Amino acid sequence: MSHPLFDRHKEKLDGAVAAVASREHWSAYPEMPSGKIYGENARDEGAAAFEGRMGKAFELDQPGTVGTVGGERSPYGRALDVTYPQVDLDVLLPAATRAMESWAKASIEDRVGVCMEILQRLNAHSFELAGAVMHTTGQGFMMAFQAGGPHAQDRGLEALAYAFIEMTRCPAEATWKKRVGKEETVTLKKTFRVVPRGVSVLVGCSTFPTWNSYPGLFASLATGNAVVVKPHPGAVLPLAITVEIARGVLSEEGFDPNLVTLVADSADAPITESLVTRPEVRIVDYTGGSAFGDWIEAHAKQAVVFTEKAGVNSTIIDGVGDLRASSGNIAFSLCLYSGQMCTTPQNIFIPKGGIETGNGHKSFDEVAQAIVGGVNWLLGDAGRATEVLGAIQNERTLERIEQATTVGEVLRKSESIVNERFPDARVRSPLIVKLGAGDEKTYMSEWFGPISFIIETQDTNQSIELAARAGREVGGITCGVYATDDVVIARAVDALSSAGVATSCNLTGSIWVNQSAAFSDFHVSGGNPAGNATLCDGAFVATRFRTVQSRVMVG
Amino acid sequence: MSHPLFDRHKEKLDGAVAAVASREHWSAYPEMPSGKIYGENARDEGAAAFEGRMGKAFELDQPGTVGTVGGERSPYGRALDVTYPQVDLDVLLPAATRAMESWAKASIEDRVGVCMEILQRLNAHSFELAGAVMHTTGQGFMMAFQAGGPHAQDRGLEALAYAFIEMTRCPAEATWKKRVGKEETVTLKKTFRVVPRGVSVLVGCSTFPTWNSYPGLFASLATGNAVVVKPHPGAVLPLAITVEIARGVLSEEGFDPNLVTLVADSADAPITESLVTRPEVRIVDYTGGSAFGDWIEAHAKQAVVFTEKAGVNSTIIDGVGDLRASSGNIAFSLCLYSGQMCTTPQNIFIPKGGIETGNGHKSFDEVAQAIVGGVNWLLGDAGRATEVLGAIQNERTLERIEQATTVGEVLRKSESIVNERFPDARVRSPLIVKLGAGDEKTYMSEWFGPISFIIETQDTNQSIELAARAGREVGGITCGVYATDDVVIARAVDALSSAGVATSCNLTGSIWVNQSAAFSDFHVSGGNPAGNATLCDGAFVATRFRTVQSRVMVG
Repeated sequence: MSHPLFDRHKEKLDGAVAAVASREHWSAYPEMPSGKIYGENARDEGAAAFEGRMGKAFELDQPGTVGTVGGERSPYGRALDVTYPQVDLDVLLPAATRAMESWAKASIEDRVGVCMEILQRLNAHSFELAGAVMHTTGQGFMMAFQAGGPHAQDRGLEALAYAFIEMTRCPAEATWKKRVGKEETVTLKKTFRVVPRGVSVLVGCSTFPTWNSYPGLFASLATGNAVVVKPHPGAVLPLAITVEIARGVLSEEGFDPNLVTLVADSADAPITESLVTRPEVRIVDYTGGSAFGDWIEAHAKQAVVFTEKAGVNSTIIDGVGDLRASSGNIAFSLCLYSGQMCTTPQNIFIPKGGIETGNGHKSFDEVAQAIVGGVNWLLGDAGRATEVLGAIQNERTLERIEQATTVGEVLRKSESIVNERFPDARVRSPLIVKLGAGDEKTYMSEWFGPISFIIETQDTNQSIELAARAGREVGGITCGVYATDDVVIARAVDALSSAGVATSCNLTGSIWVNQSAAFSDFHVSGGNPAGNATLCDGAFVATRFRTVQSRVMVG
Repeated sequence: MSHPLFDRHKEKLDGAVAAVASREHWSAYPEMPSGKIYGENARDEGAAAFEGRMGKAFELDQPGTVGTVGGERSPYGRALDVTYPQVDLDVLLPAATRAMESWAKASIEDRVGVCMEILQRLNAHSFELAGAVMHTTGQGFMMAFQAGGPHAQDRGLEALAYAFIEMTRCPAEATWKKRVGKEETVTLKKTFRVVPRGVSVLVGCSTFPTWNSYPGLFASLATGNAVVVKPHPGAVLPLAITVEIARGVLSEEGFDPNLVTLVADSADAPITESLVTRPEVRIVDYTGGSAFGDWIEAHAKQAVVFTEKAGVNSTIIDGVGDLRASSGNIAFSLCLYSGQMCTTPQNIFIPKGGIETGNGHKSFDEVAQAIVGGVNWLLGDAGRATEVLGAIQNERTLERIEQATTVGEVLRKSESIVNERFPDARVRSPLIVKLGAGDEKTYMSEWFGPISFIIETQDTNQSIELAARAGREVGGITCGVYATDDVVIARAVDALSSAGVATSCNLTGSIWVNQSAAFSDFHVSGGNPAGNATLCDGAFVATRFRTVQSRVMVG
């Protein structure tokens, strides 16, 4: 049987399937916002499309619309004034359930082909999505384009590749023949079908609304489930555009567009608790704060729940070849998107006796000052500063910065920075505070935003112990390690791995601990309180469907 | 690096890996209790080994022993008088946790090789295990040998194959090279390691203590976890022997034997609730009744929980070629181990207008009587009767039979049958009761044991609807379908598959709906209340470990 969309996109799917097996560098969607790749006018057209959304009702022809809701404000200073359908779950969820009937019966190739086409359309809308991501999350343009567009699409494709692999591990049919006696043979024709679990709810976050959501969206959709998209009230637009594009492709291909629907809400009248505990909902993907993630894990018992929550990331400095290169790399990690990444280092552990470097011994203070100096240099150029820092997504982060200035010796103050293009943008530079190893009450919890602690330890053994314990007990996603002694690296990697924390060792230059590459890096291990799942592995897709068999006697 | 045990058993592992992909018939351990295969004296030696366990303390050199516990009685009439160590969890669980340290660091091949060797030793003890299974579960000898021995070992190997596949999907190392600028390339050496989740608890059942337990045991052990085995108080011995064998192999290979430990308890002082909710316990495998399975799913929140619970299995009769062959097959299904299999049909739906057969139209009563007659014929020979029926595991089943005689018209009485070899054996023949489609209150719940209902429906559409609803709402594992019209078969298979129920169509001869073949059949779909997991698929093993990565910059 021919599957036109599957065949059209098969090369990309094959590439993804090969890449998740090799874990080598690979990408399906170009990360450079270049006219040569995306078309001469793509940037202008994308910007115009984004502007065209402003001040309007975002129309989605989905059932159960009973009003409108919306109130996003750009961290760069303007109100978006976009409203979205407010829905009645008692109408929407049955419609989503019904939509699954024919979708579940479509072939694996048809479903995967449709998902590939949705990804392709999303890719073509990358500039519009960049505007939407930038003006909801506060990311700088380049990050909004890359993480919000092609990198998110790569993540979606990665999950789709895993779903394809998982659904095709078992053949659709098999002939089972067994000798059951001297003369007697039994032959059964067995048929194995993919049966979806049920309605899947995607709870998006305010900082990476597409990057963190696409894996769950495509893993659930490809395996036959309907997906209800519940964006963070502060970052609805990127996911509303995503839903619109997905519905368009589904309709064109003759499927029920209610396979992908939007449920928007407001901070005043949140709907997530009642949504994720509905009996129709059998899968939940969540990215966001730990408290609510824990609540969902405990209460959405009728569903399988995949969470990406928060934690405390560390950096351990034991020794470096080139202090400037290393401290510069760390400084960039702290500045990137103002520390609002779930992978940003918070706790930087340095032995009180200092470290050895290629240029001789450096004291604790010298190493700390090298990091502070690196941040200052990076922010010395105003244009570079605003592009790298972006803007602060949530006002409450400003209060947190204030509070953090009182917990220890401030090595670097957080300052307001003027973004010339967006004078009302909420921009703050990183705060760096010195703490002692004994200040666990402060640093053993998450301080989300541009807030880092440089912590004086007895020695690197203590640094490793504290970093691993933070991961194990509070949760942790990444840990930077700087050491010239392989034995120290091995010890740190051992301890952090056991705590389910991914390590990045001796990074310098144009690669940072915050970055996680699709098809190669496992983002979040699922092995500590920072989340119960990985983006992406077999476990992330395997329970979204069930294999149900039928045996017919044929001899 | 050489891995002697892995290399020694590699052919079997390769066979298993190929079989789970093809789903064709394959088996690693011979199912015939034949002296030619297992050795001339194997049967006698196994019987002697089993007898040698009677009336003694079962010694296991494991930490935290604070007393003894035990009180198994054979359904064939004798007290086993075996006692087992009673353990202090506060000592045992830390020891199990410590045992994981070096095990987790061993190579995948070393762990899998040790597991293969344990399976091989279990296979060599199949006759002893058969005695232990027979005299705890009440199975007949042949079933006790096959299901308790080689078939259980095949199930363990199947899970081991999935664990091996799952752990090796991602390479141990990869080189990731990315061009990040016109002149700049970043090269990271990435290392991916399997990190076990934590202590795994296996809660065994009283009817298939090894068959249902080995998948979880080997899936958890191979992926680096310690396994605490908690048998049903009525069927400890088969798992105690299993633990003894596993500990022996682990010790010989230089690993901590506390990777596999036994926690026995009694019906008077059950320990499972406190065990499965301990913080050290991160994985639970459970087979047993639905009420306690639901309790574990709801309360063991610190763990991933895999359950195989109970449900209501149906048979739908719409038409047959040879009524005698079909009804005889159904009759055998009802008799096998006195209906104490989780796959035994309970509800047999026949249209009130009767069915078409190769020998013309047969009325509802004629079809029902054909099944009753099939049972009577099968039990007509006393030796065959006792071998097929086995004995009733639990006394409470006798009360249930009594109760069931009052709910409708008794088509076939349940009788006490004398087992000549074991005069005190608790043997009862199947009870068959006629009900109407309206008697949902009776047949829409589980009546465990030799109790079946033949239910008069309007037509086959109603039969399908009721069978599918039973699966969806109460839970269901198997459904037999007898129809000569392919459209009817397709409709039944569609409806039952959507309800997560596996169908077996038109079985006659030496294959029965109760049977589930390792490497080919998915036992329990995980898609309805009969259980949340499948034995065995990728999902059954994928969350028992996490992949944690380390990246080192090398250029």
